[in-house]
Amino acid sequence: MTTNINHRTSALGDLSPVVFFLTFTTMKNWLITIALTLSFLAGAQTTEDNIKSIYTTALSEQYSYELLRTLCKDIGARPAGSEAAENAVQWARMIMDSLGADQVILQEVDVPHWVRGNAEMAFIEDPKTPLAVCALGGSIGTQEFAGGSVSAQVIEVTDFEALKSLGEEGVKGKIVFFNRPMDPSLINTGFAYGGAVNQRWAGAIEASKLGAVAVIVRSMTLLPDNHPHTGSMSYEGATKKIPAAAVSVLGAKALHKALRESGEIKVSLTLSCKSLERTKSFNVIGQWNGTEKTDEYLLVGGHLDSWELGEGAQDDGAGSMQSLAIPYYLKKNNIRLKRNLRVVLFMNEEFGMDGANTYAERAIQLNEKHFVAIESDGGSGAPRGFSIDGNDSIVQVVRGLRDLFSPYGLHEFPTGYSGADIGKLNKKETLLIGYRADNQRYFDYHHAATDVFESIHPRELEMGAASMAAMIYVLDKKDIHLTQKVGVE
Amino acid sequence: MTTNINHRTSALGDLSPVVFFLTFTTMKNWLITIALTLSFLAGAQTTEDNIKSIYTTALSEQYSYELLRTLCKDIGARPAGSEAAENAVQWARMIMDSLGADQVILQEVDVPHWVRGNAEMAFIEDPKTPLAVCALGGSIGTQEFAGGSVSAQVIEVTDFEALKSLGEEGVKGKIVFFNRPMDPSLINTGFAYGGAVNQRWAGAIEASKLGAVAVIVRSMTLLPDNHPHTGSMSYEGATKKIPAAAVSVLGAKALHKALRESGEIKVSLTLSCKSLERTKSFNVIGQWNGTEKTDEYLLVGGHLDSWELGEGAQDDGAGSMQSLAIPYYLKKNNIRLKRNLRVVLFMNEEFGMDGANTYAERAIQLNEKHFVAIESDGGSGAPRGFSIDGNDSIVQVVRGLRDLFSPYGLHEFPTGYSGADIGKLNKKETLLIGYRADNQRYFDYHHAATDVFESIHPRELEMGAASMAAMIYVLDKKDIHLTQKVGVE
Repeated sequence: MTTNINHRTSALGDLSPVVFFLTFTTMKNWLITIALTLSFLAGAQTTEDNIKSIYTTALSEQYSYELLRTLCKDIGARPAGSEAAENAVQWARMIMDSLGADQVILQEVDVPHWVRGNAEMAFIEDPKTPLAVCALGGSIGTQEFAGGSVSAQVIEVTDFEALKSLGEEGVKGKIVFFNRPMDPSLINTGFAYGGAVNQRWAGAIEASKLGAVAVIVRSMTLLPDNHPHTGSMSYEGATKKIPAAAVSVLGAKALHKALRESGEIKVSLTLSCKSLERTKSFNVIGQWNGTEKTDEYLLVGGHLDSWELGEGAQDDGAGSMQSLAIPYYLKKNNIRLKRNLRVVLFMNEEFGMDGANTYAERAIQLNEKHFVAIESDGGSGAPRGFSIDGNDSIVQVVRGLRDLFSPYGLHEFPTGYSGADIGKLNKKETLLIGYRADNQRYFDYHHAATDVFESIHPRELEMGAASMAAMIYVLDKKDIHLTQKVGVE
Repeated sequence: MTTNINHRTSALGDLSPVVFFLTFTTMKNWLITIALTLSFLAGAQTTEDNIKSIYTTALSEQYSYELLRTLCKDIGARPAGSEAAENAVQWARMIMDSLGADQVILQEVDVPHWVRGNAEMAFIEDPKTPLAVCALGGSIGTQEFAGGSVSAQVIEVTDFEALKSLGEEGVKGKIVFFNRPMDPSLINTGFAYGGAVNQRWAGAIEASKLGAVAVIVRSMTLLPDNHPHTGSMSYEGATKKIPAAAVSVLGAKALHKALRESGEIKVSLTLSCKSLERTKSFNVIGQWNGTEKTDEYLLVGGHLDSWELGEGAQDDGAGSMQSLAIPYYLKKNNIRLKRNLRVVLFMNEEFGMDGANTYAERAIQLNEKHFVAIESDGGSGAPRGFSIDGNDSIVQVVRGLRDLFSPYGLHEFPTGYSGADIGKLNKKETLLIGYRADNQRYFDYHHAATDVFESIHPRELEMGAASMAAMIYVLDKKDIHLTQKVGVE
């Protein structure tokens, strides 16, 4: 009986489910008929139906939101090298196992281990006025200065040109205060960030060359509040390592005002951060095997590490938990992929890209063909679209999917930067896609104590997870050879 | 000299500003030359330039955000008929005067005056379990019941069909609990609201017909928290007025669970709300005269009234303050409109549409030709687009502007509903446009105590104000006759 039915099912091919159902209504075994009909109906779902189902599951079950709650509230901030990062690795492995991964790989990554320490403090000395500061990631502390604090006159500049024009005589022995705000008129706040962040990254380098004793950098945010925002900084090319701190926007305004009114003011800065020995951590890689093209990979990912302030909810708890929920959402909708799905939770995006480098190197060694990689590392805002890093013909292929996504608010398919972690993969072989969330609020929380679970909106987060799952599903149906279409750079 | 320069300016016509500048560099009076060149350059700004400038001003100055702060924090909730609503009217008039309105009209509106009272309480009687409730707008209180509370057995239904199937024998003397949630799978939360809100609006009508003593309606929100959400309800067609309350989603879940476990439970409900005599209030209308077509109007607006819970920040402080900022943003960018700009702050959208009706009736009486009306009453989310209520040819005209708005995140230009207040205007004569903000969060706050200023994101709010200002500016440049293109319904 079962064989017979299977034979008929197969023979019916593409006939409509209604005809199929009518064909069987004369048969006796109703239960089997109905079960098979339902299964056939499921198979007959259109691409649009399946996409709709993915969003429905995500919005109804909110699985990535619940994962993120655990990551933020039970594990918390997880800078590379920390015990919390190790906890996050082990927990993520467990979740992947529970989601039926065919393979879970902890891929060893060599990471720096910088610790913030307890004391982070600054004040204008006369009249004594506190400034909300935090150490920039990678900064030395002020332990070596007399009394454990650096105290010096402050000079304010808005860019490196202005700094250089002051010369060594204007800078030596002083604290340089970089106070160029992010440009509020830019609609894409990422561009506003990009236009200001060199102060944070290279401020200490440039100031050290002219003999400064420390730098204080206005926080990279558009929100005028009193939270300092950390982030990575560098000493590469510096003549001397000098302490580097971020000051809150309100602190920056107060400092600016004091300088304008008094001309000459001194600030005291105390930081107890330090770098420890490099240590070992892991990328967490879950693999769900495909049904056909088992030598090809579909990668979705974000980074598991975060800064120590807040809980790393937006950056990048959101993206990593969206990625982790994707196999769940696909399975709930009975979607089997032809290619192997890999969820990759990268380690140490924030302070050296070690996980991304390790993953990419190993992929080359093993000759793993990544058909597509999608990264989410722009926060949990409502969906706006996908950025596409590929050549023109591939861009057109992806843009051709626009009508599938516009009902869900995804209209923007620009070319270019798609993410730091997947950016290490070989662009000649892999289509790189960045999930783009609305970013008006992103830098409010970015790298600050406010980057906590409460800043996440469940529906917006889940629409991101669903968007990524749907894009993976749709691209996996394609048999295009990306390697042939994406030209050599 | 001046005459000579003016002559040349005019003769140069569309030549590039650079040529123009070079022409004058040989002249002696540099100051005049520079001043005129700058003025010419200003005149030579493209439409795109002006739109960009409007957004820049809004994002940099955040004027509507500051207006909204005052409205929410100094005036607060402002239900029609209340003293706060009167304060809002007088304050808005003052702001319009300060913004150089050529005319400010307080247009008298007859409004209902319903007051919430202090006591709003409900609990499951055994074991005593509190439920977070609030009266629905327009409900009678429970003052007439023995002890000032209604206490009765509860029956749960999810729709009117289910209610009717219970018949009078199943409903009489009981409290009907309407517990159909908003559908989380719908991307447009407005549709999810539309699919559930008949329980709130007509629940008491339908329940009264079968002899129920009160209704409790699950709050219209997708957020599972403990805040009840109010909103208007009706007794039109009811056989008897019975008290109607909203219960928080968590309360609804608790009640549902108790019913499932115990079968028969009783709830006690206390409401001290009541309706007072109808009273007078006002639409606040500011007019900035146009330069050419002074018999035509461009309307932007939102509603000034709100429910009493919260501060009416999203509904509709946001839309009304976005509208109020538009003349400021246009003036700051030296944009003069050909037609008269009217900012209309409607009174009592929430509980009878009296302001909208009055405004529309008066517009007909005075034969005022409204070229376009734009309403913002969907919260302060990031921009998504504009809905267009007009015939096909007009829709195409507006959609033809899409490329001007897509850089700012506005991609959606659907047809249909554009707003309750402008919806009273004559569609045969007026193009109706609804500003559409992202609405994933809107019903989290809608009509609840959480609808406060802190729920507003300044950039998202301002992008809405700028979007509306830009649309007014662009449409005003057009000389199309909307009345000829928009067919009779």
